[in-house]
Amino acid sequence: MVSQNYKDMLGAKSVIRQMSEWAAERAKEIGRANVFDFSLGNPSVSVPQAFTDKMTELLKTRDTMELHGYSQSQGIPSVRAKFAEFLNQAFGMTYTAEHIFMTTGAAGAVAHAVRAVTQPGDEVITFAPYFPEYNHYVNQTGAVLKVVPADTKQFQINFEALEKMLNPKTMALLVNTPNNPSGTVYSTETIERLAQLLEEKQRVYGHDIFLISDEPYRDIIFDGVDAPYISKYYDNSLSCYSFAKSLSIPGERLGYIAANPKCTDSTLISPMCAQISRGIGHNCPPSIIQIAVSEVLGLTSDLSVYETNMKIIYEELVNLEFEVVKPGGTFYIFPKALEEDSVAFCKKAMNYDLVLVPGDTFGCPGYFRMAYCIETEKVQRAMPALRRFVEQEYKH
Amino acid sequence: MVSQNYKDMLGAKSVIRQMSEWAAERAKEIGRANVFDFSLGNPSVSVPQAFTDKMTELLKTRDTMELHGYSQSQGIPSVRAKFAEFLNQAFGMTYTAEHIFMTTGAAGAVAHAVRAVTQPGDEVITFAPYFPEYNHYVNQTGAVLKVVPADTKQFQINFEALEKMLNPKTMALLVNTPNNPSGTVYSTETIERLAQLLEEKQRVYGHDIFLISDEPYRDIIFDGVDAPYISKYYDNSLSCYSFAKSLSIPGERLGYIAANPKCTDSTLISPMCAQISRGIGHNCPPSIIQIAVSEVLGLTSDLSVYETNMKIIYEELVNLEFEVVKPGGTFYIFPKALEEDSVAFCKKAMNYDLVLVPGDTFGCPGYFRMAYCIETEKVQRAMPALRRFVEQEYKH
Repeated sequence: MVSQNYKDMLGAKSVIRQMSEWAAERAKEIGRANVFDFSLGNPSVSVPQAFTDKMTELLKTRDTMELHGYSQSQGIPSVRAKFAEFLNQAFGMTYTAEHIFMTTGAAGAVAHAVRAVTQPGDEVITFAPYFPEYNHYVNQTGAVLKVVPADTKQFQINFEALEKMLNPKTMALLVNTPNNPSGTVYSTETIERLAQLLEEKQRVYGHDIFLISDEPYRDIIFDGVDAPYISKYYDNSLSCYSFAKSLSIPGERLGYIAANPKCTDSTLISPMCAQISRGIGHNCPPSIIQIAVSEVLGLTSDLSVYETNMKIIYEELVNLEFEVVKPGGTFYIFPKALEEDSVAFCKKAMNYDLVLVPGDTFGCPGYFRMAYCIETEKVQRAMPALRRFVEQEYKH
Repeated sequence: MVSQNYKDMLGAKSVIRQMSEWAAERAKEIGRANVFDFSLGNPSVSVPQAFTDKMTELLKTRDTMELHGYSQSQGIPSVRAKFAEFLNQAFGMTYTAEHIFMTTGAAGAVAHAVRAVTQPGDEVITFAPYFPEYNHYVNQTGAVLKVVPADTKQFQINFEALEKMLNPKTMALLVNTPNNPSGTVYSTETIERLAQLLEEKQRVYGHDIFLISDEPYRDIIFDGVDAPYISKYYDNSLSCYSFAKSLSIPGERLGYIAANPKCTDSTLISPMCAQISRGIGHNCPPSIIQIAVSEVLGLTSDLSVYETNMKIIYEELVNLEFEVVKPGGTFYIFPKALEEDSVAFCKKAMNYDLVLVPGDTFGCPGYFRMAYCIETEKVQRAMPALRRFVEQEYKH
């Protein structure tokens, strides 16, 4: 019999999706070039030619049965070893292949990580503003997602609220830095304070508290920003990564979990995740993509475009007297709206062909997100529209 | 805190895995060519050159952002439309894109299908001998897998036992034809009888009973065999397919669910599956593989090798007086062991460098599986070893 549970979920369309559908409709009327769509977080810079060349070379030179054959359920062993070595070089860690579990993107990584370190009824804490899919990744395991209100001053961590929320049922924290939607990066100071607090609570509660670190934007860091690698600061860390943004290949679904070698049961996390995969019928990301990416590790798309776009928008927002924290990475910015109701604010913006997403979606009403993974030329053309919107609606 | 549930699962290694590990060890001693490993169901015929050419062409000609970009959560719309049209041509169905949900292989398809049509506590019935991963696909949803004992005469359906097992809690049946491990194909007579019985039970129980049809071997059918397309015979059918075997690309994880246009909520199944994917953090199979396969639909590897291998083995088994049903497809055969304890039988076979899998693994003790997806030359060389094994162990 058709499941009422999943059927009931069909009604609720995400706000981002609604905004983007409106943008598509509007594009039919006035042309795509004239709709300033800041709603979707899709990479906008080309896949590097070296990745395409590597794929082509593999297809030409490798035995097809090896190239397209089953990978082991934790991922292709040689690929896992390469990723471990790459992380060790980049961040001074001591991973081995045993600590790496290959996933379908960061989504698969976070959802597996939550299952690996919680039981139904446990609490997982995240921090507003946050990626709304976290609700699904956590709640469908039977665990409960708790959200710490935002530190709207700097979009670091609201420690006062966090301390109140921590309790013996807290089994994991889920952090996302560089952050979607705020664009901010947790500083070394923030991470050190968080690590210290969690270590203390582990002692008090007498059990592990895992830090699940969702890091798909790890490679999009702007000039001079302090961007610590979380696992260096806290032993019970699981780093969740994706190549979607760094190589502009979101559709190929490749990511991994790297379990800190010092975490509890560090070499069991990956085989446990393989058991989790069995139950959802989902074994391994695609072989050819695993192999191709492992042979171009360190390669990225031209990510500098995002910083260029950020600077244009940030400057104009400051000129227009928005309250806004300068992003340290990603392709998002999260200013305060000019009225309390950010949904109303974003609706008015549509009259100026600006597609913005209200902060309510991210657990932080009163703010709005702009995703600037679009052509720089378009970002520039959007600024007069933004100015018109602000002046006509809020400064008459 | 690390989940005890998944940790507990780590101890249990599958028998197939143990056999195959023994085979790998033995290969180090006497050379891979001399171990007659019939344990693993991996395709052994090359990926068709036309598939490799298509992949290369896509990499050369398509915009990389389109080729590697996010696919929608139900799959790429144009790909879904092509698959629907292909099925309509092949089987006289009336699918549209709306009925197709793209999955990571048949595993993803079956696991999603079970979630879509059951609630925790519901019963799902399958038929021995059966693929042991079904236990995981079903039980991890909270539903309960019930197994109808085998019809060991023909490996069709034991209807008497099925009728006893059906009850108002039965919400789905899970069938696999052509069958792993028996290699047999359900006849039109079997399917018609099954459909009739389920329709009657739907009326009596007053609710839908879905037929989840796991069809990864649909294209490996031997000459002259009656191989009906299940959805033509029963409205509440969900066909689960994979390209792993037909194109020899198991590592690329591509499959789909095709919901019968006449089933209850037929156009809701795919969007519901997209909601299921959200909760497990697993969105869509890889874009480039979706696109490439959709452009070579109907293409298969040279599957005739499997029939050649089957004939060699079947003939020798008959000569050796095994009780065995002639396979109608797949690359498996499932003879009766020469002693009651098929685990003991398979262990003795290892002394002759023959790697066989006991039927216990498939819910059918007393039988054993041979997977003949290996080189024909090796199959031929294995026959004298099989004869020696039988004569020395059982005919002295």
